[in-house]
Amino acid sequence: MIRPILLLLMAPLLGWSQPTAEGTPASSNVPNAQYPRIHDDLRATFRLTAPGAQKVQVSVGGGKHDMTRAADGLWYVTTPPLVPGFHYYSFNIDGANVSDPSSHTYYGTGRDASGIEVPERGVDYYLPKDVPHGEVRLRWYLSKVTGAWRRSFVYTPPDYDTNTRTRYPVLYLQHGSGEDETGWIFQGRANFILDNLIAAGKAKPMIIVMDNGYAATPGKPNAFEDLMITDVIPMIDRTYRTMANREQRAMAGLSMGGNQTCQVTLRHLDKFAWIGAFSGTGNGLSTAPIDPKTFIGGVFTDGAAFNAKVRLLWLGMGTVEPNPFPGAIGAFRKMLDDAGVKYVYFESQGTAHEWQTWRRDLNDFAPRLFR
Amino acid sequence: MIRPILLLLMAPLLGWSQPTAEGTPASSNVPNAQYPRIHDDLRATFRLTAPGAQKVQVSVGGGKHDMTRAADGLWYVTTPPLVPGFHYYSFNIDGANVSDPSSHTYYGTGRDASGIEVPERGVDYYLPKDVPHGEVRLRWYLSKVTGAWRRSFVYTPPDYDTNTRTRYPVLYLQHGSGEDETGWIFQGRANFILDNLIAAGKAKPMIIVMDNGYAATPGKPNAFEDLMITDVIPMIDRTYRTMANREQRAMAGLSMGGNQTCQVTLRHLDKFAWIGAFSGTGNGLSTAPIDPKTFIGGVFTDGAAFNAKVRLLWLGMGTVEPNPFPGAIGAFRKMLDDAGVKYVYFESQGTAHEWQTWRRDLNDFAPRLFR
Repeated sequence: MIRPILLLLMAPLLGWSQPTAEGTPASSNVPNAQYPRIHDDLRATFRLTAPGAQKVQVSVGGGKHDMTRAADGLWYVTTPPLVPGFHYYSFNIDGANVSDPSSHTYYGTGRDASGIEVPERGVDYYLPKDVPHGEVRLRWYLSKVTGAWRRSFVYTPPDYDTNTRTRYPVLYLQHGSGEDETGWIFQGRANFILDNLIAAGKAKPMIIVMDNGYAATPGKPNAFEDLMITDVIPMIDRTYRTMANREQRAMAGLSMGGNQTCQVTLRHLDKFAWIGAFSGTGNGLSTAPIDPKTFIGGVFTDGAAFNAKVRLLWLGMGTVEPNPFPGAIGAFRKMLDDAGVKYVYFESQGTAHEWQTWRRDLNDFAPRLFR
Repeated sequence: MIRPILLLLMAPLLGWSQPTAEGTPASSNVPNAQYPRIHDDLRATFRLTAPGAQKVQVSVGGGKHDMTRAADGLWYVTTPPLVPGFHYYSFNIDGANVSDPSSHTYYGTGRDASGIEVPERGVDYYLPKDVPHGEVRLRWYLSKVTGAWRRSFVYTPPDYDTNTRTRYPVLYLQHGSGEDETGWIFQGRANFILDNLIAAGKAKPMIIVMDNGYAATPGKPNAFEDLMITDVIPMIDRTYRTMANREQRAMAGLSMGGNQTCQVTLRHLDKFAWIGAFSGTGNGLSTAPIDPKTFIGGVFTDGAAFNAKVRLLWLGMGTVEPNPFPGAIGAFRKMLDDAGVKYVYFESQGTAHEWQTWRRDLNDFAPRLFR
């Protein structure tokens, strides 16, 4: 009798069409799932059981890849090398777009979508390391604005519960379109990024509040600004040991959340002194030139006054983001430059409109806060 | 031009085969998803986009239902009335078992599976109500037993952060096979159950700790007992304001977690005085008669001594649970009866081996603790 391990070793010699099990199961797999597997060169092999299917594809990292039925009756494909970081992906089975039973899901693209974590060599700032860890707290509250129960995710830094007289600054941190309050933790790993920055003395201990960017009332489909001002900030300042003033309050967000950040902070500079817009700005998806005299209440009309009031305006973008982001962010920057507004501009090399861009953004942005 | 709303109203008159949109979107749907829908009589209508599929089924509540392609090209089925509560479900598309893109997923059956919440008329003990809410905290820790970073879910009762001198009793609460530390919150709604019980004065404020029941070391595939004793309990007592003694420490679990609860508590009665086994007992799936002299170190040999030492032994089961649960729990009860061991036995009417059983269990069990 030939033992299975020998069969596996012999497979290449026998010319079997079944892929060999090289590579390593992705860290985003559910327990015990052997696929997807990531190879040393960051190619990824996906597998699906779909015995009666006619056509199966995987969509990942901006590409669509036909899968083929192997000798074992399962469908396989190995993609070209993927960009490091977190990617949503889906299978298409005979026209049905569905998640992979082998991977954990993450709320994005408007549903609980499969995700695959592709490691970045030599990079560990978003991994759990042997440092003190903060908590992530699920906090329910009844919204005056929407009349419904809502949930915030709240990161409290290490030692929050033991330093019981210490008060902390607060960063409000928002997800993108089709995502929710879970995104910055499960996709973005904001808690691990902050744990590592704080342990290295690179960022001040802070509270991070992540809420759901969707808030509607019968008369107002987008009531997020009202929600932030009326519900979230007062609830957080009432519930946690915050330093409740503009010098100790920041807001940032990605894509749609970057737009929301600009809209909320720039209309309420009495409440915020630190602003981060990740792959999104106050002009949304528009690439048209911006007139500072009319834009968001004319807040950029007097660049010197803005610079004196705002402690940090931080913009970031991946170098390979698709349209309209380069044009929209470019139009926003041009207006800032023309108005003499100071800002930090950060580029994430080789990444698109995706979570690896935003992890890098947070890792650069957070250390600059509350100095 | 006929407006879409008119088309919808006209559909029955036109005799279209597309199902009418009666019923209400399930509360477990992702935002804006119109299906699955639950009808007043608890039938549920599922819908899937799978234009090229040959055969589509939905498996839910113990039944498999063929779906049919309607005139709009989508697949539909309406099930018979479902038992109230939370059900995992899946679609089978040409042999592929996958989740429904329209529903949130919940880690169970070994993957991030779709769930559907079927309301129970007149019952709101597990719904978020306008009462003070506790937090659910994600707490990372480095396990000495496994050498890996792990995550506990920790419920802290309302006012935990403001009553900073109060110490609390602790309930360790475990999930079932194929689930993880998220189950008791997202499927079980343990936090809302306790919020409501505490607000009504029916349960004492307590901390609830939910860990992952899977813990392996190279030499020991099941090291959960070691994990609990070496890692989890000391970490919790070090991190939270607990009352760290057996009279203020309980453990309960469902199915596999019920078995683990018996194994851990009955071997460590110096650490636990309150025990709950929900649809699972110390004999696991075995229905064989039990000899108390040899069972779990002979802990039940002297029934009177056991009764004097253990403040509560609580067993529960749904009335329609499948084999082997009635037989296994029956064998355990017979042994207890023969040994003169006192216990509470609770039956959940009309529910099977499912979360509605365990929600009811917790709602009956928690008020009895720490009295």
